[in-house]
Amino acid sequence: MAPSSPLPASTATRPAFARWMGTTNQITRTFLAAGAIPGLINVAGGLPDPTIFPTERLAEFARRAVAEHPDEVLSYGPVEGLAALRDALARRFGSPALPLTRDNVLVTTSGMQGLDLIGKVLLEDGGLVAGQYPTYLGALDAWRPRAPSFRNLVLEAPGFDPFEAVAGAQFAYAVPNFSNPTGRMVDLATRRALVAAAHRTGTWLVEDDPYGTLHYDGAALPRLIELSAQAAPGEPYAGPVISMGTLSKEIAPGLRVGWVVAAPAMIEALTLAKQGSDLCTSGVTQRVALAAIESGLVDEIRPALVALYRSRRDALCAALSAHLSDWFDWEVPVGGMFVWAVAKDPALDTDALLPHALSAGICFSPSSVFDATGANRRGMRLNFTLNPPERLDEGMRRLATAVAALRRSRGGAA
Amino acid sequence: MAPSSPLPASTATRPAFARWMGTTNQITRTFLAAGAIPGLINVAGGLPDPTIFPTERLAEFARRAVAEHPDEVLSYGPVEGLAALRDALARRFGSPALPLTRDNVLVTTSGMQGLDLIGKVLLEDGGLVAGQYPTYLGALDAWRPRAPSFRNLVLEAPGFDPFEAVAGAQFAYAVPNFSNPTGRMVDLATRRALVAAAHRTGTWLVEDDPYGTLHYDGAALPRLIELSAQAAPGEPYAGPVISMGTLSKEIAPGLRVGWVVAAPAMIEALTLAKQGSDLCTSGVTQRVALAAIESGLVDEIRPALVALYRSRRDALCAALSAHLSDWFDWEVPVGGMFVWAVAKDPALDTDALLPHALSAGICFSPSSVFDATGANRRGMRLNFTLNPPERLDEGMRRLATAVAALRRSRGGAA
Repeated sequence: MAPSSPLPASTATRPAFARWMGTTNQITRTFLAAGAIPGLINVAGGLPDPTIFPTERLAEFARRAVAEHPDEVLSYGPVEGLAALRDALARRFGSPALPLTRDNVLVTTSGMQGLDLIGKVLLEDGGLVAGQYPTYLGALDAWRPRAPSFRNLVLEAPGFDPFEAVAGAQFAYAVPNFSNPTGRMVDLATRRALVAAAHRTGTWLVEDDPYGTLHYDGAALPRLIELSAQAAPGEPYAGPVISMGTLSKEIAPGLRVGWVVAAPAMIEALTLAKQGSDLCTSGVTQRVALAAIESGLVDEIRPALVALYRSRRDALCAALSAHLSDWFDWEVPVGGMFVWAVAKDPALDTDALLPHALSAGICFSPSSVFDATGANRRGMRLNFTLNPPERLDEGMRRLATAVAALRRSRGGAA
Repeated sequence: MAPSSPLPASTATRPAFARWMGTTNQITRTFLAAGAIPGLINVAGGLPDPTIFPTERLAEFARRAVAEHPDEVLSYGPVEGLAALRDALARRFGSPALPLTRDNVLVTTSGMQGLDLIGKVLLEDGGLVAGQYPTYLGALDAWRPRAPSFRNLVLEAPGFDPFEAVAGAQFAYAVPNFSNPTGRMVDLATRRALVAAAHRTGTWLVEDDPYGTLHYDGAALPRLIELSAQAAPGEPYAGPVISMGTLSKEIAPGLRVGWVVAAPAMIEALTLAKQGSDLCTSGVTQRVALAAIESGLVDEIRPALVALYRSRRDALCAALSAHLSDWFDWEVPVGGMFVWAVAKDPALDTDALLPHALSAGICFSPSSVFDATGANRRGMRLNFTLNPPERLDEGMRRLATAVAALRRSRGGAA
């Protein structure tokens, strides 16, 4: 044992952080700093309107979770999640054609954890992900520690070949319902083609569906896992689709309860990864989630939620038309939380626009953060769920000011 | 787009799981299967006795968390955790010599997540961890996806050289208070030497302290981070110690609330890793944790908890003396949840003992799972917090039966 000499100052060079940390985007830091700007209008995040939270009932669910199930919710729970919640999710997503049991279901600590676990289970360093492009920022974040390579899938591109798209990848990733960031709904033919390609190649196909119930116009389309089950209808699901969801958009993000529905072999693998990630999800929040589903609360609040968000989508699109139609194109999304606007002028750089926008009091998500290489600089993601119509209008007016400021700073060019 | 030909059966070979998954131990599977054995006495886990949970007060805290702070706890929260909880933890662990602010604190979704995040931030594939040996199973689990190499540190070995022990490692890992699995308390001289070595080499030093308050005999020793702060007393902490804790052993594991206290640069790095892991910890459980700390509940229940667990430690050691002293040696731990028993006969293999133990109705953790190579087959970890004295006595009686059965099956040799 060393003699007790005075403790040396801690000035030695520390071991380096893992390399992936040098590859992260700075957008969260930018957003956090933006939070300090008084009066800022934030259309950058994917945030629900807190006024829709059914506070009183959730408070009562939280009390009863602990008071009525103390041993269950206060102890360590099963890694896979509470059996009652897994059963409820199996009932919710199953059907005669797609019989599901709790062995098909893993409860996750948020949808984000599902993405993290999929990366842990399927990716070696540099492993190939075939991802719908542009790609959800959080998925890029979740997989960064595995330093994957990305094959970008533009599902709506003419000549898109699903077999070539998914062959050789560890997994394919898509947000078929109201994609993050573009808000697009993947059409039925493309859904079928993706599933068929996954079946032919064996490639795992991750279906991320946080927004499915936020559907404003038209009929729902079958989920990828439902289409996959058609290859062996009525048999226990053992196919390549990994279907993810969360209560964050339906009830409240603060519960941090999500799920994965997949073949039992995949659930078992994800469970092993979850064991070393957080051991189990809180029994308290799982019981609140279960009560929200089983009491019918989730179904009860959906119409009001859909009506509110539909009207805000319309308000945002009207504000875009009023203030930004000279500079941006966009499609009206039939669901979800976002409008994707693309600059008419290919030289208009939304990374360069962002500081002007912040100065004008509006914060958006630039397209670069939805691209693993950061190369896409022409678009922006605009959220419409958090702000009321008059704020959305004012936000787009500010954004037009920011475009003008950017153009002035570039001597007239965008 | 492919024509809508019939969906092919999903028989193609799937992409392989990541290699690390082939390296995991089967102990959790064994334990789960054991759970189905009627009347089994479980001393395998690190489980608190559910009778100690302050159910009514936690139920009320849960209700108030949602009712009084709905926007905060039901929305997405800051990645780093709620400011009020970070401040409370900074007050709890800080002192005039070790001034801490919220910038020194990250809230984690359980202690396990802290370990996962440290692996993500500090380990490349194959990176070197210098870990106290034998090593907490959960830490081995958390780092497995990074496929680290391990340097085993036997802190109490004669001639242990802390400088050689930590030099060149990405980080060193120790459970100074009542180590998992051995129950040992690392002495003050060794604590000082480890901290000095971390200061000299720059190596990060992870202090995992879930059991610190479960202290049954004698005086507490300073935490490694307190010793590290002595190099620059009163200055904002920027040293190499990363100090982790959890409410799982003090209040209830089901909250899944833990924390990391470290230099702000390390907190910032861990925050980036947490962002892609679960985005934020549930505001509901964070508010319950905060109420448990700030109301004084944690301090109020500690004396009863310590008295209960002390008497159970004594009961387990008495049962060991009564039934197993011919076959095993052990030390009486001064704190924590475990007694570590080592076979007198080096040929007695606790992996081989386990199936006999399960047949006899007792489940323990064999030493192999606390060794990254699985080579340590001579010991077992016995938990004393979950079961009352008569069950502990009966459990050790069953274990003696199992030893006899193992010896018979080997023709008399152990």
